[in-house]
Amino acid sequence: MLNFESDYIEGAHPRILERLVETNFEKLSGYGEDEYSYRAKEKIKEKCASPESEVEFLVGGTQTNQIVISSLLRPFEGVIAANSGHISLHEAGAIEVSGHKVINIKTDIGKLRAADVEEYLTDFSDDESREHMVLPKMVYISHPTEYGLLYSLEELKALSEVCHRYGMYLYLDGARLGYALMSRCTDVTLMDIAELCDVFYIGGTKVGALCGEAVVFRKGIRPEHFTALKKQRGGLLAKGRLTGVQFDTLFTDDLYYLISAHAIDLAEMLKNVFLNKGYKLFVDSPTNQQFVILENTKMKELSQKVKFCPWEKYDAEHTVVRFATSWATREEDVHKLSAFL
Amino acid sequence: MLNFESDYIEGAHPRILERLVETNFEKLSGYGEDEYSYRAKEKIKEKCASPESEVEFLVGGTQTNQIVISSLLRPFEGVIAANSGHISLHEAGAIEVSGHKVINIKTDIGKLRAADVEEYLTDFSDDESREHMVLPKMVYISHPTEYGLLYSLEELKALSEVCHRYGMYLYLDGARLGYALMSRCTDVTLMDIAELCDVFYIGGTKVGALCGEAVVFRKGIRPEHFTALKKQRGGLLAKGRLTGVQFDTLFTDDLYYLISAHAIDLAEMLKNVFLNKGYKLFVDSPTNQQFVILENTKMKELSQKVKFCPWEKYDAEHTVVRFATSWATREEDVHKLSAFL
Amino acid sequence: MLNFESDYIEGAHPRILERLVETNFEKLSGYGEDEYSYRAKEKIKEKCASPESEVEFLVGGTQTNQIVISSLLRPFEGVIAANSGHISLHEAGAIEVSGHKVINIKTDIGKLRAADVEEYLTDFSDDESREHMVLPKMVYISHPTEYGLLYSLEELKALSEVCHRYGMYLYLDGARLGYALMSRCTDVTLMDIAELCDVFYIGGTKVGALCGEAVVFRKGIRPEHFTALKKQRGGLLAKGRLTGVQFDTLFTDDLYYLISAHAIDLAEMLKNVFLNKGYKLFVDSPTNQQFVILENTKMKELSQKVKFCPWEKYDAEHTVVRFATSWATREEDVHKLSAFL
Amino acid sequence: MLNFESDYIEGAHPRILERLVETNFEKLSGYGEDEYSYRAKEKIKEKCASPESEVEFLVGGTQTNQIVISSLLRPFEGVIAANSGHISLHEAGAIEVSGHKVINIKTDIGKLRAADVEEYLTDFSDDESREHMVLPKMVYISHPTEYGLLYSLEELKALSEVCHRYGMYLYLDGARLGYALMSRCTDVTLMDIAELCDVFYIGGTKVGALCGEAVVFRKGIRPEHFTALKKQRGGLLAKGRLTGVQFDTLFTDDLYYLISAHAIDLAEMLKNVFLNKGYKLFVDSPTNQQFVILENTKMKELSQKVKFCPWEKYDAEHTVVRFATSWATREEDVHKLSAFL
Repeated sequence: MLNFESDYIEGAHPRILERLVETNFEKLSGYGEDEYSYRAKEKIKEKCASPESEVEFLVGGTQTNQIVISSLLRPFEGVIAANSGHISLHEAGAIEVSGHKVINIKTDIGKLRAADVEEYLTDFSDDESREHMVLPKMVYISHPTEYGLLYSLEELKALSEVCHRYGMYLYLDGARLGYALMSRCTDVTLMDIAELCDVFYIGGTKVGALCGEAVVFRKGIRPEHFTALKKQRGGLLAKGRLTGVQFDTLFTDDLYYLISAHAIDLAEMLKNVFLNKGYKLFVDSPTNQQFVILENTKMKELSQKVKFCPWEKYDAEHTVVRFATSWATREEDVHKLSAFL
Repeated sequence: MLNFESDYIEGAHPRILERLVETNFEKLSGYGEDEYSYRAKEKIKEKCASPESEVEFLVGGTQTNQIVISSLLRPFEGVIAANSGHISLHEAGAIEVSGHKVINIKTDIGKLRAADVEEYLTDFSDDESREHMVLPKMVYISHPTEYGLLYSLEELKALSEVCHRYGMYLYLDGARLGYALMSRCTDVTLMDIAELCDVFYIGGTKVGALCGEAVVFRKGIRPEHFTALKKQRGGLLAKGRLTGVQFDTLFTDDLYYLISAHAIDLAEMLKNVFLNKGYKLFVDSPTNQQFVILENTKMKELSQKVKFCPWEKYDAEHTVVRFATSWATREEDVHKLSAFL
Repeated sequence: MLNFESDYIEGAHPRILERLVETNFEKLSGYGEDEYSYRAKEKIKEKCASPESEVEFLVGGTQTNQIVISSLLRPFEGVIAANSGHISLHEAGAIEVSGHKVINIKTDIGKLRAADVEEYLTDFSDDESREHMVLPKMVYISHPTEYGLLYSLEELKALSEVCHRYGMYLYLDGARLGYALMSRCTDVTLMDIAELCDVFYIGGTKVGALCGEAVVFRKGIRPEHFTALKKQRGGLLAKGRLTGVQFDTLFTDDLYYLISAHAIDLAEMLKNVFLNKGYKLFVDSPTNQQFVILENTKMKELSQKVKFCPWEKYDAEHTVVRFATSWATREEDVHKLSAFL
Repeated sequence: MLNFESDYIEGAHPRILERLVETNFEKLSGYGEDEYSYRAKEKIKEKCASPESEVEFLVGGTQTNQIVISSLLRPFEGVIAANSGHISLHEAGAIEVSGHKVINIKTDIGKLRAADVEEYLTDFSDDESREHMVLPKMVYISHPTEYGLLYSLEELKALSEVCHRYGMYLYLDGARLGYALMSRCTDVTLMDIAELCDVFYIGGTKVGALCGEAVVFRKGIRPEHFTALKKQRGGLLAKGRLTGVQFDTLFTDDLYYLISAHAIDLAEMLKNVFLNKGYKLFVDSPTNQQFVILENTKMKELSQKVKFCPWEKYDAEHTVVRFATSWATREEDVHKLSAFL
């Protein structure tokens, strides 16, 4: 059955599996102290043009958010996020279970604007009861956002500037970072992100890996004893090679970028299929997730032949649904979809 | 200096201090196992007309909210509150530090409506990703609210009904409950609250005690091993008599009600002083906190002679300020204030 | 009935109640921003001969331990304590609920020796898997200990030295500190403690107050935003005067010391009563708690006339029981006890 | 270089990699809702002869311990473990960071005896201050233990009996369960474990998988909303197929058992090499980890040619070192080691 349900319905990019097989019998130290992890870190730092950054591998996105946030914040500090942010809504309270408040700012479509953040910070600083409030210490954004949208370089610079002016960290959740970097509509590079954010992660799970996320801490930001922090929150793999080999592969011969570019190409094709057939998009996403408004009867009919992800109610008769592409999406899949519409 | 800053600027109602002195040399068991605590519990249950309820004494409001909420919720469960609720804003993250998310619902002026709660719950139940979300398990309201407003019996019944229909607890924060019960504009009695809420607390600190809050759990609701839960969150006093004697006194000869009625009388007088002088109220509060809109220059001038609490910016030239009355407020204080205006 | 059950069976020293009454109508700011709290802090710092220390008031002992420990340690750090220490056994997991491990060291009778601590630290430092272990960052002792024993100045210096050599905090729980300071067998002064410990608390609840403990942080040790940390763990009283007035009174005219000296005198008298009647002590306590070995039948018989605290089984036929004295114990009580024996 | 450092120095058993490759392009639902996960669960339940058990996949051992323990215990409850247990020592405080105390019982060589547990529970039940203590609600054992030892069926039955008599859970950490089951010296089967334990896990990471542990809850034991609990502690993989395919493979054609039996054969061979050369074992381990006492100079010399794991100091001149075998250990490796000795 045709399937555009998500970007994690297949396993890993074949090159990753090949490398896991090729390296399988090498005897390597555990807990990330292996040469593939070391190499992958170096390659990532090089791509970031940030030799003094520090890279750490974790297993999944929610885990990464929890460990990064809880390890950087003190108990009375909180993290600002859009009210539609992943940590705000879809992590089952992982941030709160680690003791921290997610301070929500209402946004139009999930993008946090520097001006909104600054307004919150100004109000907070003015508040006489601020010692009875959660101290905002970090801004969390995702890029792409939950709706596949991107921050422009100017927007990112403004966020970075306001964060640093107020002594806060800027943290970018890059679960789908590849698709942001290879979007046809972006002026933001990995180097920009490494320069403007205090910490961010390069998503593996949703960009061709079986699992794994690479956290990049700007120089001086990584908490001491981070290994213990990973360990105590269940993020330290005994066979650290699993993430090491995968990220080494993803950052060899630009595989990470090629995977992402492929998904973007297919997403653009898919978007055009919908537009050409007269469908309306919920947002005009420049990345690998496309949000289409379907009439409910059409949605039902289509769901017999294609898998996709119902996202939210649009109105009484329409629903927003998500179609996602990945390294594994084929042109013929999009053609088939086109035929069904 | 004239002072309407809050309802906790003086010590305790004199009758409470007398009773502390009178009972001081009695040798009593610790940790709440004293006859005054026992008696106070019985008196409170009687006033609630709820002999099978269970009463527990704690020290302060934030502590009470933290202990009640964290002891009733499982780790993946959260509590719904107005975005202006005390637990949402002014407890320095006490709920989150205990591991739970405060799920905010936007309200006009701090009152949570049953319809808003139901809308949230319906959306939640419909959401296909709800296992990745925080499960709403409790609704938190305060009565009076942060702005001194009250729920009507009908509103409270509707909240109770929707909570129970969805298998949730209704929790009422009664830090200033006396002022709600003795308001001239309420149709809600203590018995109503005991009947409609699963758990609530009767505030002592802000209604004449030095410290102390009395939590009332409906039959069957109090978590097992609640003593251990109090102990591990710092809420178990070695000299439990301190809260026992105070609540025994407050619930003897209706002292709790008399204190509250006095504060209400003075608050009404104070409100009329402002209205008669042509001032505008921010909200028409029927309880002991009055929120007045002052021109900034007037506010500055007045602050030379009277203490009050700046609450929030109204517009560029005006500020909302709070005047609070208590058991200790005297008619002459209100007259003096009138003279200053 | 004669009662030596604990040092918290009565209310407060009468002078404290008098001062609460005298100051009751003064209008004071909340949350510890009152002149009595300020003054009490100054007096305590003076007695500590440590003008740059910082003093904070909290409500009870377990709360104090939880807030001090959790606010000074990072998530992967733990606190070393004797396996009979209060935080190890009798706080219902308050330290763990705040996320930290209590690392137990086995001791003879509850006193932690510098050599034992150093042995643990050496082993830890040598351990190749130490990043998978809880990092020891604080040593917790109580003075007097759970069995009423005291550290000598030499022992305290040795502990302080080893802690600081390993980059750890030394934290002294002084729930009954007065009795330590006024013991006839001590060479440790409050100044010594302020000099040797990074943080300690001066117990109020068990030394004449209704409630309240005064934490003393050495210069530079108090965590930033401590008010928020207190607030979020339920330790911030709205009526901060309650602890302010009490500690101001205890540290005026040496009341804290006089209370303690009285309890020591009576404890010595009580000890001699037992020794003269041929009873055996479980430990030779130089403070206000006396641990006597009673034959079980004798214990039962005596319990008809006197209240005391069964502590632990000694052997099949004997039990260790605790008799405690306080500011309220009278000579005639000890004479009566003597008559009963 | 010859390497016996651990049982996780290689990748995965080749059959697992093959299956990952073979299934790679199948489009599967995420979060464990794939057919391989379903099938693996069924196969495991069948091997347990326990059709009503419930199986859940997690990523690593520490994560599993944290999630199982914190999801079954209430905040005031703790888990009893040997003081050398993995959760006691080597999880960087993962249990405490989730809010729970690990209650240590001193053991000879890491095996918890029913009698020791019962003694603790009896003392606890008798303790008058037990509401101020952490309530023991679970017993944690590992099988094999940290030193590779095994519980006999009789010992396991006794532990199970005492746990259930006191209303406690028995939890077995089977990080290396395969080696226990295939030991030549065991009378305990997987069915026995499924019958006697309330919850246990079948380790994948150390028995041939890249990562992954399979938790088996006895009927009725699995907490509701376990998916949310996994999610909020970072244990829910988006590509659940990663653990699903691996466990499906391990439990197809008895691969799990064959892997383990191979490691046991090689461990026995290795043990005999040492014994024949006159070396002394620290413990006589019947599983895949062998603990040998080496003279320090010998250890240093040998470490030039062979990798192994220094375990602990034996005396001034000797060290205990661990040699581990796995699915990947070859006979010729043992012969080479023999030649080096």
